[in-house]
Amino acid sequence: MDVFDRLKQAAVPEWQSYVDHAFVRQLGQGTLPEAAFRTYLVQDYLFLIQFARAWALAAYKSRTIADIRAAQMGLAAILDETELHVRLCARRGISRAELDAAPEHPATVAYTRFVLDCGAAGDLLDLQVALAPCVIGYAEIGNALAPDGVAALAEHPYRDWIAEYAGEAYQDVAAAARKQLDRLAARSMTEHRFGELAALFSKASQLEADFWQMGLEAAG
Amino acid sequence: MDVFDRLKQAAVPEWQSYVDHAFVRQLGQGTLPEAAFRTYLVQDYLFLIQFARAWALAAYKSRTIADIRAAQMGLAAILDETELHVRLCARRGISRAELDAAPEHPATVAYTRFVLDCGAAGDLLDLQVALAPCVIGYAEIGNALAPDGVAALAEHPYRDWIAEYAGEAYQDVAAAARKQLDRLAARSMTEHRFGELAALFSKASQLEADFWQMGLEAAG
Amino acid sequence: MDVFDRLKQAAVPEWQSYVDHAFVRQLGQGTLPEAAFRTYLVQDYLFLIQFARAWALAAYKSRTIADIRAAQMGLAAILDETELHVRLCARRGISRAELDAAPEHPATVAYTRFVLDCGAAGDLLDLQVALAPCVIGYAEIGNALAPDGVAALAEHPYRDWIAEYAGEAYQDVAAAARKQLDRLAARSMTEHRFGELAALFSKASQLEADFWQMGLEAAG
Amino acid sequence: MDVFDRLKQAAVPEWQSYVDHAFVRQLGQGTLPEAAFRTYLVQDYLFLIQFARAWALAAYKSRTIADIRAAQMGLAAILDETELHVRLCARRGISRAELDAAPEHPATVAYTRFVLDCGAAGDLLDLQVALAPCVIGYAEIGNALAPDGVAALAEHPYRDWIAEYAGEAYQDVAAAARKQLDRLAARSMTEHRFGELAALFSKASQLEADFWQMGLEAAG
Repeated sequence: MDVFDRLKQAAVPEWQSYVDHAFVRQLGQGTLPEAAFRTYLVQDYLFLIQFARAWALAAYKSRTIADIRAAQMGLAAILDETELHVRLCARRGISRAELDAAPEHPATVAYTRFVLDCGAAGDLLDLQVALAPCVIGYAEIGNALAPDGVAALAEHPYRDWIAEYAGEAYQDVAAAARKQLDRLAARSMTEHRFGELAALFSKASQLEADFWQMGLEAAG
Repeated sequence: MDVFDRLKQAAVPEWQSYVDHAFVRQLGQGTLPEAAFRTYLVQDYLFLIQFARAWALAAYKSRTIADIRAAQMGLAAILDETELHVRLCARRGISRAELDAAPEHPATVAYTRFVLDCGAAGDLLDLQVALAPCVIGYAEIGNALAPDGVAALAEHPYRDWIAEYAGEAYQDVAAAARKQLDRLAARSMTEHRFGELAALFSKASQLEADFWQMGLEAAG
Repeated sequence: MDVFDRLKQAAVPEWQSYVDHAFVRQLGQGTLPEAAFRTYLVQDYLFLIQFARAWALAAYKSRTIADIRAAQMGLAAILDETELHVRLCARRGISRAELDAAPEHPATVAYTRFVLDCGAAGDLLDLQVALAPCVIGYAEIGNALAPDGVAALAEHPYRDWIAEYAGEAYQDVAAAARKQLDRLAARSMTEHRFGELAALFSKASQLEADFWQMGLEAAG
Repeated sequence: MDVFDRLKQAAVPEWQSYVDHAFVRQLGQGTLPEAAFRTYLVQDYLFLIQFARAWALAAYKSRTIADIRAAQMGLAAILDETELHVRLCARRGISRAELDAAPEHPATVAYTRFVLDCGAAGDLLDLQVALAPCVIGYAEIGNALAPDGVAALAEHPYRDWIAEYAGEAYQDVAAAARKQLDRLAARSMTEHRFGELAALFSKASQLEADFWQMGLEAAG
């Protein structure tokens, strides 16, 4: 059992409330109201800007060139993901100007600033644990929503989103993050500390669930 | 017009939504449900822990011994305020153990981590502007709720809370914070930057309003 | 053996080069040139300003009210120590204006910013380990230079300095720092991590030795 | 006159002590002892690791996607530069293992941690000003040492180093940094603040001069 599995096991209800949220289920079934998805997309763009900052923070907090490089790859991947987001939005008629002008929803503020503060106050391991529900969780969700592969999604209304996270490129990013978590834990995780990290992981999972909820509520 | 007045003027609707929130009005009229106040008190205790960290951040970001001392006094004042909080809570039957075990509400996370991140990413002026709705705003609210002085509150059910923020000691803290804001702005506020600071102040005021709202909803 | 003793044992040559530096020996024997001591005093004042920031950083990085309080007491103690320094300097004809105008020597920059960066990049334990050669080391040096107690120093030319660090108040500060180190290590020190902390402790001890050296060289 | 020129003008002696240091002159004339250059190269590799962290810090402290991207490009450029460094070193018989095992010299610690702390304590403008003597200064030095172009260097013993910094790619990096400085200053530089930034620039230039001096002394 790797560290990520241990963290999930220590936070089962919070983890389930996130990966099995009504938003996710409706997204998978294709029944999610378009208004919910649009609200989500716009906020997720704002979210990614803060997550880019979180990867930059990881690079800053690194002490070896290998750790700096790993974080720099995470940062570059996020910046690419924002471009993909801009295209997903454009296809739905949301312009870049609209994205840049959108105010951050409190749920976006809560999750992103929580992660950034975990990283600023703690060490690299705290930061990676706070990022994990997003970075690794999205890969699990992507996989769960494409049980027969991306090709089988055919006319699915949210095909592009699912394909992105179920796709090989993103799955590789998540696998790398998972290994980095194990490496960092091998260095500096005591059992006492595991308890603190699990609390942090649980909180981050809840804040992710709140983020889905924000989308659903927007569709009223 | 000092910097604080300029900031309020640049964010009138957000500022009003905060200082004139239904929670505040009901608190002043003594009609606020006890459950709302209790939820608020517990979350405000968790809030103060993060605000103590924000004052510590201000001391860390200072470059002169005078600025360090000013921030250290803010930090000491907050640590005293948490003790007062523990006593306010005890009188209402909320134990310290209960306070320490309470999970942070998303509204608490959003506001506190937003302020901490403003300070970590920006400079001392950014941090003080993000703190201002709380530090200076509570003094305005305290004054507004005790128009005839603290003595006139007599049997008011929330007398202790109002007296705290309308009292001279807290009014002095707020006045000092206001002057520090002017000093910092004299050093490093361009007109372009005023626009950024006003946006930050507006966001912080909204997050304060959300914090009151959380209290009200708890009494739902 | 507590964590501090383990760290010293892992960095014997660097530790000895610091606590047994010629500057320290001459200070103890009363043969240290006044010019060396004055240069040291002025730089130590600038050093303390940065160390106050380091304690503030420790408060910011704390997650519990107990840890915040411990760091705030460290910060308050340092601010008091700077006042003592101003008085020590005044007695030697160095004015506060002179202190504030003095440029930081590279040795001062190197040690103080190294400690601050350890804290910013790492966690609370990294920061306390980087502070330890100074905080705890000065108590050991003070004790070593007053083997028969402070009273026996009588006409010693550096009596006031030795008395300060051999005195009960400072010894208590150091003892508290030592216990805090053990508490933090119990929480989050793996054996792998001990190796990293020992490297950091060794570097900080060397930078302290360079700081004494700067004083000696000033005396030509 | 752009901001960089104003900074140089406000710190003429410190700037000259850096760009016209004996190390630089001997490097240009090809008379620099190989031992001095080797010591410099090894320390510069350690320096670049910390500078990569400084660019990551700039990305973390950014608020717009444009600023994050600019900093991310700086970070990527530095990581490339470290690879070039490894190759320069390999040609001189210094292995990567030797580089990674080398202890940081106090002059390396002083300059790099000073820059990182300027960035952590201040804002993006403080950080870019502290980085400027290195980022932009090396382009000026490269140009000055190749007055007739890189091709004319022919058999110059330090041809590869000079060609790197006089080359178009590096000159473009420096030009971009210069423009970013102007953009940041337009946003948030008051005249009062210019004085603080000039002091910071002057200190950073001195620490760069100390870095050359360390190389020379190694050849002692």
